[in-house]
Amino acid sequence: MLPGIGVFGTGDIVRALVPFLRAKGFRVEAVWGRTLEAAENVATELNIPFHTNKVDDVLLRKDVDLVFIICQPDLHAQIAVKALGIGKHVLCDRPAGLCQLEVLKMVHAAQYYPSLISVISHGLRFLPAFVQMKRHLEAGYVGAVNVCDVRVHCGSMIGSQFDWMCSHLMGGGILTMVGSHIIDAVSFVTGQRATRVHGMMRTFTKSTEKINGIRWIDSDDFCSFQMILDGGACVTATLNSHVAGGFVQEVVVCGSRGRLAVRGASLYGQTHTDEREQLLHDGSADDLTHLANRNDNSSARVNSLLPQPYLQGLFRLVGALKEAFATGDGEHGWLKEPVSSAATFEDGQYVQAVIDAVKLSSASRQWEQVTVASDENELNPLMTRLNLPNINMSSLDALSQAPTNRPQPAPTQRKTTATSESHLPWSFATKH
Amino acid sequence: MLPGIGVFGTGDIVRALVPFLRAKGFRVEAVWGRTLEAAENVATELNIPFHTNKVDDVLLRKDVDLVFIICQPDLHAQIAVKALGIGKHVLCDRPAGLCQLEVLKMVHAAQYYPSLISVISHGLRFLPAFVQMKRHLEAGYVGAVNVCDVRVHCGSMIGSQFDWMCSHLMGGGILTMVGSHIIDAVSFVTGQRATRVHGMMRTFTKSTEKINGIRWIDSDDFCSFQMILDGGACVTATLNSHVAGGFVQEVVVCGSRGRLAVRGASLYGQTHTDEREQLLHDGSADDLTHLANRNDNSSARVNSLLPQPYLQGLFRLVGALKEAFATGDGEHGWLKEPVSSAATFEDGQYVQAVIDAVKLSSASRQWEQVTVASDENELNPLMTRLNLPNINMSSLDALSQAPTNRPQPAPTQRKTTATSESHLPWSFATKH
Repeated sequence: MLPGIGVFGTGDIVRALVPFLRAKGFRVEAVWGRTLEAAENVATELNIPFHTNKVDDVLLRKDVDLVFIICQPDLHAQIAVKALGIGKHVLCDRPAGLCQLEVLKMVHAAQYYPSLISVISHGLRFLPAFVQMKRHLEAGYVGAVNVCDVRVHCGSMIGSQFDWMCSHLMGGGILTMVGSHIIDAVSFVTGQRATRVHGMMRTFTKSTEKINGIRWIDSDDFCSFQMILDGGACVTATLNSHVAGGFVQEVVVCGSRGRLAVRGASLYGQTHTDEREQLLHDGSADDLTHLANRNDNSSARVNSLLPQPYLQGLFRLVGALKEAFATGDGEHGWLKEPVSSAATFEDGQYVQAVIDAVKLSSASRQWEQVTVASDENELNPLMTRLNLPNINMSSLDALSQAPTNRPQPAPTQRKTTATSESHLPWSFATKH
Repeated sequence: MLPGIGVFGTGDIVRALVPFLRAKGFRVEAVWGRTLEAAENVATELNIPFHTNKVDDVLLRKDVDLVFIICQPDLHAQIAVKALGIGKHVLCDRPAGLCQLEVLKMVHAAQYYPSLISVISHGLRFLPAFVQMKRHLEAGYVGAVNVCDVRVHCGSMIGSQFDWMCSHLMGGGILTMVGSHIIDAVSFVTGQRATRVHGMMRTFTKSTEKINGIRWIDSDDFCSFQMILDGGACVTATLNSHVAGGFVQEVVVCGSRGRLAVRGASLYGQTHTDEREQLLHDGSADDLTHLANRNDNSSARVNSLLPQPYLQGLFRLVGALKEAFATGDGEHGWLKEPVSSAATFEDGQYVQAVIDAVKLSSASRQWEQVTVASDENELNPLMTRLNLPNINMSSLDALSQAPTNRPQPAPTQRKTTATSESHLPWSFATKH
């Protein structure tokens, strides 16, 4: 049987996702919102039986076995770690967390409960165009990969009210929202990871007609970054949210023998022996959005925050989750194979490490090494340079120390090899 | 009367240009080639009455009053300075020279003979799409300029034989050939100049089927560079010659109120109040190539070296030159107005300063200041860092010291205000 789902978040993406989850046969049991009002509104609109503004109230529900964390990024890590700690499967939206330290805690939680599904919503991995691109690259279509050339043009991501998307410190910005997908997709299709990066980030729109009070927008609305991959390829990516009028995404991978390009949801290719470009996969037939009852009048902002290729990818990831549970055998209740290509929390940590390095580079105006740490202490120098200690440490600590007055659930059946619990500040496991 | 023209160079661009010059009413009197054989071949093919492999033999001809320097970049500066020194008008192909020091010598020569026309072949300034973009920007169409986002995709620029295009030290590479046009065009349309730049340059194709002997290709075939303009705007540009199958160029300028984009030879725009993108100028009607009898089967390499927008722009620049001479009054024999928007040698020096800084940045992996020098001594530290002293200084010195056994021409009539001749090593003027 498919697991019941608890959803964290009340944004437009949740409104698009819930109908699709139901179309796939999932039950959506509960929704969490930052305020009770927001939760109630979404619950009423989407006909969700339970709503709350308390994280634990969703996590502790027995009818919730899978949680979708689609809320502001500064809450991702704590909710994910807690959820895994009480035996819930987790799908977490990008960016995984605010900084690598947060994501490392998620990684440790996931490693600690390997029988649970823990994936990041990097849906491009499930978009047929990128799946085909990866296959063609593995088959040597372009030869040795030299250059990846990525361009994303979209309209403003800022809504009508000040929210986390306006705040660099809360995880907003085009690098975290779009760049995270790009960093993951490049590593997915090429099989290479960044070793050094350079970045230039800017916030040109600091206020809007509606956001012009005491709080200013400081999340990046433009980012150009470059990566050197461990196989020697160069990546250059331009993320530009100043181009109103639709979402344009092009990922071009060039090699010694030819090139491949994903434009939107379609794949094109040309080898040096071809006279012209070939359409290798037509993505126009991949549209699943009719299943989501998505309103064609979706606001321009939804289209910027979760444009078609990302939404299609997310839907396909959900489809893979359904496969994993629907065909699963007894022990874990799910099969690994359908979600084996999904982005793990480790992948999310790599992406976050690159994001952190791009941010550092934009400030230092130099190339920065990408350091993927296995131990939290390794990250101390990075945290100091990122200038984020207050955010991360205090919110992490506050949460880990906050006692809950709720009854502890019985631990679910799972195989774990507990070695250390020090990495899991928010985990119920530490209180068993 | 239109001046007689002497052409330096024997490449495919010369083959496209000469018929167009004649269609405009110019007489092409002489052609210079690096070898006598190359010169003879072009002269026969294009029916040019005189050919030679000696620079002075063209410069000293009385029927030559305007020289087109369309040969390898390491010869540009010395030919241009010599030509101005004996009273000839000069159109010089990009890049103006090998480094800023060379171009500074050209600038000094041009300043010394202000009555002569001296322009760089940055033809995009004459392409209607860019002219219109500049006008729209000046009229406030996009508001304050935030971001310029430039992408050029083309096929390999390497021919079937080893030549200067293969050599970084001889001025080859996508940064000098394409980036120079982009740097100039951005500064032309925005009215802003780069103060700091960052660059990543690579040579992925070091040998080809036909070039695989003792000499290797070391000119850049990929370049991503970023610029901070003096008005605060950011520029990011990706130049990628690994994308076979046609030339793609997009220059997008975003601002607080909207954006403008030149794609190919057409201009598009969208303000924040527009529902969709507008076609502001249709460049498909601008084609002048029929006047050049250009063979539609032009090699792929011509299309990479001088693709349609650049060729169209060059033709329009030639048209402006014709206007300048045809409508000119008595004193200088030409009118400034028709060529007033052409790139001067000063503009060429700025472009070269940016190119030098991008090259330095690619090596240093840091942002570099753009220094536009007015005195050669200012450039000493830069020359040392660029690691080019042998090339520039020795070739310059060799040329300036080489005695010519030819008779000196009578100086042409012109107003000059001589103050110092030390900047002009190749100038005949120093020997008067």
